[in-house]
Amino acid sequence: MRATLSVPTVVRTIAELHARLDEYRAAAAAGTIGLVPTMGYLHEGHASLLRRSASENGFTVLSVFVNPLQFGPTEDLDRYPRDEERDRAVAAEAGADLIFMPSVSEMYPKRPLTTISLTGVTEGLCGASRPGHFDGVAIVVTKLFNLVRPDRAYFGLKDAQQLAVITQMAEDLNVPVEIVPCPIVREESGLAMSSRNVYLSPEEKSQALVLSRTLKRVPEWAAAGANAKELKERVRQAIEEQPLADIDYVEAVEYPSLAPLEDEKEAAKAGRVLVAVAVRFGKTRLIDNILLPQA
Amino acid sequence: MRATLSVPTVVRTIAELHARLDEYRAAAAAGTIGLVPTMGYLHEGHASLLRRSASENGFTVLSVFVNPLQFGPTEDLDRYPRDEERDRAVAAEAGADLIFMPSVSEMYPKRPLTTISLTGVTEGLCGASRPGHFDGVAIVVTKLFNLVRPDRAYFGLKDAQQLAVITQMAEDLNVPVEIVPCPIVREESGLAMSSRNVYLSPEEKSQALVLSRTLKRVPEWAAAGANAKELKERVRQAIEEQPLADIDYVEAVEYPSLAPLEDEKEAAKAGRVLVAVAVRFGKTRLIDNILLPQA
Repeated sequence: MRATLSVPTVVRTIAELHARLDEYRAAAAAGTIGLVPTMGYLHEGHASLLRRSASENGFTVLSVFVNPLQFGPTEDLDRYPRDEERDRAVAAEAGADLIFMPSVSEMYPKRPLTTISLTGVTEGLCGASRPGHFDGVAIVVTKLFNLVRPDRAYFGLKDAQQLAVITQMAEDLNVPVEIVPCPIVREESGLAMSSRNVYLSPEEKSQALVLSRTLKRVPEWAAAGANAKELKERVRQAIEEQPLADIDYVEAVEYPSLAPLEDEKEAAKAGRVLVAVAVRFGKTRLIDNILLPQA
Repeated sequence: MRATLSVPTVVRTIAELHARLDEYRAAAAAGTIGLVPTMGYLHEGHASLLRRSASENGFTVLSVFVNPLQFGPTEDLDRYPRDEERDRAVAAEAGADLIFMPSVSEMYPKRPLTTISLTGVTEGLCGASRPGHFDGVAIVVTKLFNLVRPDRAYFGLKDAQQLAVITQMAEDLNVPVEIVPCPIVREESGLAMSSRNVYLSPEEKSQALVLSRTLKRVPEWAAAGANAKELKERVRQAIEEQPLADIDYVEAVEYPSLAPLEDEKEAAKAGRVLVAVAVRFGKTRLIDNILLPQA
């Protein structure tokens, strides 16, 4: 807990970011630096990452950047929600020391000629429905790591595939940053926190509760001996009962390799298994997941 | 100049490398760190990079690693020359403080799932004849940068395309390392220094002098108004006079974009132009180049 609420400085350029970080690093009592990369429109999930970083590091940097390279041509880049005032308030409350809010031209003065791509972990789940998405994630995370040079970076398990991709990339490239996975934060209703929840109509939101309600039952189904195929079918059937639900995928994969689990394999006997779903309600695509065995 | 010749420590594991670097960084008088990445079998070209680094930094790391990912299946990975004792002696003489000589399994404990690839700069010249080569260069340089976290890294202009690729990657990814280009070092005969020169028979070596002899005349041809096509033809004709010469490419490209120069464009009026050649003598593929206008 922080005794006083300090207002984090907002910087918009790389030069200012470096000036602030140099200042911090030059201080006699400089500690470690934590980074929480976000696309803004912060919710309690982001706040939990910031609080964790503030508790583990001497200095916490929040980045807020809606990264165009991770959006497909038909996706919601243009209408992605933004609220700088609220982001600053959440960041202050959660203990961020510095907010880096660059423009697109500050991050990409020219279209990069460099691509960072991963095989394996990117092939199923959201990678299959969002071609190029994880290339966009990989490049922006690499840039942010190089710009901030944090000791630790915090990512939510809600985006489990993103976390697996970043962890794999960090391992492959000897990235000198500890990747810290953080648990999914849910609304009281069970709905996983997401900036995109703001798009949902009341009716869509109510039907979307099927995701958390169904995933919550997965551990008992697995414990009762359900194999991968049965598990996926049960989840699919439960979701399909909601008339507004349009399923993109329901998958059961090994974690963190994200290799598909064989249909006949019992989930309870397969090491760590990620059961993950992506479902559209109206125009809004939601993702949610559960990791077995539960911690 | 160094007053005394200190023998650089050799480390073979990442853990030892980090221990030595942490030790240096923790010292009260710690200065900047320079990195000279090589594949070993050091010659005077490498020594010039080490001397430059030693003169500009408080601590110089030499890496010696024959990176399998930058060799094609039909290339000379297995017979690439190695001589650890000589490398240690050259490194000591040239002022290296630490030599990092990892095994292949230390650098690649598993086959990486991550690829770093570039468009544009990798498409012509050696990129066209050596598919995947620059992906291999990009990943190993990224890994070495992440492992050593140098302030500066030194690369020779002999591998002009490699330098252009690394510079572009560093810019695209905000890599926090200053990339320092260093001039080509030649034997007294004019032959550009290369670890691969050891493969040449006396006859091949003698005929290979045509490369430097011809490239040396390029500035006068350009000054006399030769356009790109004429320049390339003159260079090609001169090289073809040597019966053992088997030309891979003779190119004139803009630098550092490496975009092909239009045939009709006068080289002297085109900003910076790289005239680059790759030629086989027997089994040995040599490269050489000249950058216009000359410094």
